[in-house]
Amino acid sequence: MNKTYDAIVIGGGVNGGAIAFNLAKRGMKVLLLEKDRLASKASGAAAGMLAAQAELDGEGAFFQLARISRGMFSNLADELKMNSGIDIELVNKGVLRLSLTDWEQQEHRRIIEVHKQNGELAELLTGEEAREREAALSCEVMGAMYLEKDGQVAAPQLTLGFLRSASALGSEIKEYVEVHSFYFSNGKITGVSTNEGDFMSANVVVTGGAWSEKLLRKTGLQLETYPVKGECFSVLAESPLLTSTIFSHSCYLVPKKGGRIIVGATVIPHTFNQQVTVEGISLLMENAKKLVPSIVQAEWEGAWTGIRPQTADGLPYLGEHPEYKGLFIATGHYRNGILLSPITGEVMADLVEGKTPSIDISAFRVDRSIKKLIQ
Amino acid sequence: MNKTYDAIVIGGGVNGGAIAFNLAKRGMKVLLLEKDRLASKASGAAAGMLAAQAELDGEGAFFQLARISRGMFSNLADELKMNSGIDIELVNKGVLRLSLTDWEQQEHRRIIEVHKQNGELAELLTGEEAREREAALSCEVMGAMYLEKDGQVAAPQLTLGFLRSASALGSEIKEYVEVHSFYFSNGKITGVSTNEGDFMSANVVVTGGAWSEKLLRKTGLQLETYPVKGECFSVLAESPLLTSTIFSHSCYLVPKKGGRIIVGATVIPHTFNQQVTVEGISLLMENAKKLVPSIVQAEWEGAWTGIRPQTADGLPYLGEHPEYKGLFIATGHYRNGILLSPITGEVMADLVEGKTPSIDISAFRVDRSIKKLIQ
Amino acid sequence: MNKTYDAIVIGGGVNGGAIAFNLAKRGMKVLLLEKDRLASKASGAAAGMLAAQAELDGEGAFFQLARISRGMFSNLADELKMNSGIDIELVNKGVLRLSLTDWEQQEHRRIIEVHKQNGELAELLTGEEAREREAALSCEVMGAMYLEKDGQVAAPQLTLGFLRSASALGSEIKEYVEVHSFYFSNGKITGVSTNEGDFMSANVVVTGGAWSEKLLRKTGLQLETYPVKGECFSVLAESPLLTSTIFSHSCYLVPKKGGRIIVGATVIPHTFNQQVTVEGISLLMENAKKLVPSIVQAEWEGAWTGIRPQTADGLPYLGEHPEYKGLFIATGHYRNGILLSPITGEVMADLVEGKTPSIDISAFRVDRSIKKLIQ
Amino acid sequence: MNKTYDAIVIGGGVNGGAIAFNLAKRGMKVLLLEKDRLASKASGAAAGMLAAQAELDGEGAFFQLARISRGMFSNLADELKMNSGIDIELVNKGVLRLSLTDWEQQEHRRIIEVHKQNGELAELLTGEEAREREAALSCEVMGAMYLEKDGQVAAPQLTLGFLRSASALGSEIKEYVEVHSFYFSNGKITGVSTNEGDFMSANVVVTGGAWSEKLLRKTGLQLETYPVKGECFSVLAESPLLTSTIFSHSCYLVPKKGGRIIVGATVIPHTFNQQVTVEGISLLMENAKKLVPSIVQAEWEGAWTGIRPQTADGLPYLGEHPEYKGLFIATGHYRNGILLSPITGEVMADLVEGKTPSIDISAFRVDRSIKKLIQ
Repeated sequence: MNKTYDAIVIGGGVNGGAIAFNLAKRGMKVLLLEKDRLASKASGAAAGMLAAQAELDGEGAFFQLARISRGMFSNLADELKMNSGIDIELVNKGVLRLSLTDWEQQEHRRIIEVHKQNGELAELLTGEEAREREAALSCEVMGAMYLEKDGQVAAPQLTLGFLRSASALGSEIKEYVEVHSFYFSNGKITGVSTNEGDFMSANVVVTGGAWSEKLLRKTGLQLETYPVKGECFSVLAESPLLTSTIFSHSCYLVPKKGGRIIVGATVIPHTFNQQVTVEGISLLMENAKKLVPSIVQAEWEGAWTGIRPQTADGLPYLGEHPEYKGLFIATGHYRNGILLSPITGEVMADLVEGKTPSIDISAFRVDRSIKKLIQ
Repeated sequence: MNKTYDAIVIGGGVNGGAIAFNLAKRGMKVLLLEKDRLASKASGAAAGMLAAQAELDGEGAFFQLARISRGMFSNLADELKMNSGIDIELVNKGVLRLSLTDWEQQEHRRIIEVHKQNGELAELLTGEEAREREAALSCEVMGAMYLEKDGQVAAPQLTLGFLRSASALGSEIKEYVEVHSFYFSNGKITGVSTNEGDFMSANVVVTGGAWSEKLLRKTGLQLETYPVKGECFSVLAESPLLTSTIFSHSCYLVPKKGGRIIVGATVIPHTFNQQVTVEGISLLMENAKKLVPSIVQAEWEGAWTGIRPQTADGLPYLGEHPEYKGLFIATGHYRNGILLSPITGEVMADLVEGKTPSIDISAFRVDRSIKKLIQ
Repeated sequence: MNKTYDAIVIGGGVNGGAIAFNLAKRGMKVLLLEKDRLASKASGAAAGMLAAQAELDGEGAFFQLARISRGMFSNLADELKMNSGIDIELVNKGVLRLSLTDWEQQEHRRIIEVHKQNGELAELLTGEEAREREAALSCEVMGAMYLEKDGQVAAPQLTLGFLRSASALGSEIKEYVEVHSFYFSNGKITGVSTNEGDFMSANVVVTGGAWSEKLLRKTGLQLETYPVKGECFSVLAESPLLTSTIFSHSCYLVPKKGGRIIVGATVIPHTFNQQVTVEGISLLMENAKKLVPSIVQAEWEGAWTGIRPQTADGLPYLGEHPEYKGLFIATGHYRNGILLSPITGEVMADLVEGKTPSIDISAFRVDRSIKKLIQ
Repeated sequence: MNKTYDAIVIGGGVNGGAIAFNLAKRGMKVLLLEKDRLASKASGAAAGMLAAQAELDGEGAFFQLARISRGMFSNLADELKMNSGIDIELVNKGVLRLSLTDWEQQEHRRIIEVHKQNGELAELLTGEEAREREAALSCEVMGAMYLEKDGQVAAPQLTLGFLRSASALGSEIKEYVEVHSFYFSNGKITGVSTNEGDFMSANVVVTGGAWSEKLLRKTGLQLETYPVKGECFSVLAESPLLTSTIFSHSCYLVPKKGGRIIVGATVIPHTFNQQVTVEGISLLMENAKKLVPSIVQAEWEGAWTGIRPQTADGLPYLGEHPEYKGLFIATGHYRNGILLSPITGEVMADLVEGKTPSIDISAFRVDRSIKKLIQ
């Protein structure tokens, strides 16, 4: 007899964790399956920026999703600490998006207008004002957009916080279990076949990051996603170099606790290769030195990569499989997986429960590209 | 010209950090020198128990010191988080000191009486009551003493929390700087000579753990201390095995966030050898299995050692050098370095400032053994 | 246009490496695909025993295969060193298979007879004679079978030696490339589909260890194999404890260069979970202490696992797919993957070239279990 | 009763190992003391170049020492393999010293003349000839000096090879034992005091690298040495990028087995700080890219530092203490510690035995700077 669960979540990253945690809070008996180690892919590699305004242009459904999700972190931090003892290291000290050219400063003016029309905080700074906030910034910085509400968390801690909290609420979490295929009956999902046997459930959520597409091909669905490698490195500064997160078009610097700074990230599409290259580090170093020259004195700590799932239209997939009832999909978060995890956990739990999510997620439905092809 | 400081602290462990932090809070310009990496010796190796009542018998100056220090952690956690962003992972879920024999249960009865006379909480549990609290305990456990006020922290986080907070308050912290000798003038300390040159100060605090004795021999002082190696290992349990810290005469198990459990520690006196031996792990494993049989299913994480400074009479040294003014000593904390760090930081800062500490520390004065010799 | 190769080898372990190396030596343009890192699974985890006589009972096709393969290591060591600079650390100091009971000593007598009838060297030793050879052996050792021709290599070095030699001879080796499915045409293989696109060849060899079965299911073939986890640990002895490899029914100890000893291995069938458990280490330690008591003084180095492919009848699969021409299979080597890699490389290269291997491998044909079902 | 030895060697690096090995070969009972882990400082960090001709200008006592030492590696490789099983990975494929300017090419012409007058092989190559040998070289390379007899070894393997061979010949080797002071009697050394007690011998060799000076100050001797930090990094190339070692004034690239390349080294004088900085890596990367552009595609492996002992006049110290009989000193090898270890081992063993070394080492005597001061 195979074990039966209220829901099975496939993927031990931040969104899998968020979904399992939300389902567990609603009283469901959840099984989460991870083919490797928990938090071992993009979620463990992320720098943890909550850059709703710095990364996104302030309009449309995607920005709304990001904005709402960003607002959920404060309560979430307490909730995960209480359930798992894990501190997600939420920092609410804003993001400084730098401009090094007139054109970028112009662009910032435009974006700030959009943000203000949407009721969001955004402040234009001159280079000097930026350096007053962050003395380490290069004199080449011409100006900045200060986004007070953006911030950052420790991505591996957030991921483990979700997962361990789900576990504390009774979820079963299995590492090294790979789903090979799905079981269906009458157009409904009934379970999964894995390298450790079969597990049955009428609700299965695929949230396997860049590996989701391969898995879903077994259901006849061809998601329009592709992997994008990102390389990062970290350094240790003796005294804290930065307070806010620094964001530019060429790289970002995220100041962590204890003088640690994460510098990211390269963008190498269409590969699952997890190697850090000399080219990647060299590029990031040169870019970071342009923004924060004194980073050269910091101690080198290490480098790593993450493989992030990007989609053809840049929007994540959040919805049900177009053919099979009970099979849900949450992937394609690209560089925003950490930021979007709280809202992803909530809306996917709504879908599993058969509830209509409180926010409109139709822009993220799974069959959107298929529809485009038809029209 | 050599740089001059209000105080120099020698040793980048938990007590060096605590002292630097307290001095920095009082407005002093502090230099902290560490011969290796910060938190790389006993402070980084400790399991982080705050076992004032579980380790100490409830009477005398040492227990008073421990009790007061334990009470300081709650505020300290907030203070260090605010200054450094570091969460020290304070857990206030008590310590269960187990008895496996009649004799131990008898001993617990006696200790509980002492604790109660001192106004401390201590509860005697039967084996069944202990297993009600902690279902993972072996049926061989005959009983337990529950010490509600004892607890635990993450020792490396506490150490870095102190150090990074000191740094945030303006202290200079240098790694890989080894003090070779001291400078004196008219019976007063004036500075130190190191592998990176000289640094001058009228106040120097030696808090080099097991390495303090060697350093102080250069001042003509022969502390009665010796190194005691302790081996530990850690495991990862899928679902949390334990809530409280488990303490017995043969080993302890400290449940950390995320399902991690630290098991410690062997006691190998008179060696600075930092190797983990098969014997040490084997012994700890067998002892831990006797207390918590299901630990066998946990995942092995790793093993390490710390070299702790023990003294001839078991009490730490907290005081001024008997011959040289301005040279202070804080060492000999043995297994209680983490627990005693808040009070150590405070009283040593008092001594450096020329204030009388609010608690009587005469039992820990540096010349106590010398005096004994004279009498 | 997809790239075309003379042969594609799937799997970056020791047998994939051996096959690629042999094909490259024969002038073929080879592509080797590994879904993770090279040598990251069982091949990198193995202790490297060449225990043809110690593990196998001396009769049948399997023993013949092992015996021939063992004899190939001496030349191979030179060949790989020359091509790749890698020393495979071949040690020809025999294996001592210990007996701790009368029954085992009796069994050894029987096996020695078989070996001698087959012209193999095998010597029966008393406990004292065994301790004369290896002074560290416990006085509980009643006797031993000394197998002079058995030996050991460094398994990760052997694996990388094959792979880097293949590379030096022009093979392309790609990490992080996972084969999703195969292309066939008219009953012949034509290529593979991967996460990095398609690669075409009329010859594909699947040598994916425990992961081969999953891959081959996509061809309609259900191999009768299952994964078997093995846990190992290693220690460092100050002065060399052992000269020969020590083998017993409960564990083995393989002395590596520089005082290092690998102790292995547990046998946990039917799991892909790569976690080391407390139970596994505890069991191996207790067993090793029984054989070599002074191992307790050695320094702990670390622990790891490998997932080995076992088959229903205990024999490896070496042959062509029963339905698709050009699709070859080499898996199921279980605990003998290192030992069998030289001969596996040779016979599989023969098959790819359409030659009849010089030794009879019909016992290992892929369709043997299917035939059994029919009869 | 303290243990007595024929000789005590202080320092577990390559020269300590070489000396212990040579003394052990001559039948002495040797004790080697290392304050940390074996091979954990400069010897473990070195890239392993045997660049007698590429680093040194071809004249004088120092070059003679280097040349003779280089010639000893071939036999040594066999000897250490036999005694310890360790392959030192000796590569005899020459060093290419590159010129990127006319001036450098001119300088090479001059050096080649000197080498030829000394009977050494040295060949001047044009840029094109250099690229014929090493296709990966940049088109900016104007020319090169090819030094056929120079080569390289694996420095950590060489160090452990010496140490484990000494051990196999009966030497005792103790890690984590720090010498605090020396015992003398009638102008002769009699032993050492350490953190693990006293050890007695009439012969003590100090070979503590950059830490020797501090130790010898306790004997009233002030060596004119200073520490020089060097940072390195390593990469993994899929197919071997280089055959020979590449040397230039700005960096060197040493191709190791299996596609690994070590790039070194920065030169940061007067510090014991072992941190790798962003500046160091950035500088090395930019320099390496100028010489071998395709290194950008290689995989990043890691970075580390070594602290090397340099002397005021650039020559090592090899000799007896000017005041105390039986106290010998071998330090100040700077960037040539690996290269000079075979001859250092031999001449120091001669000195300990009271023999006159076969080569004139008077240029390296310990009291040379004192003499200079007098004249």
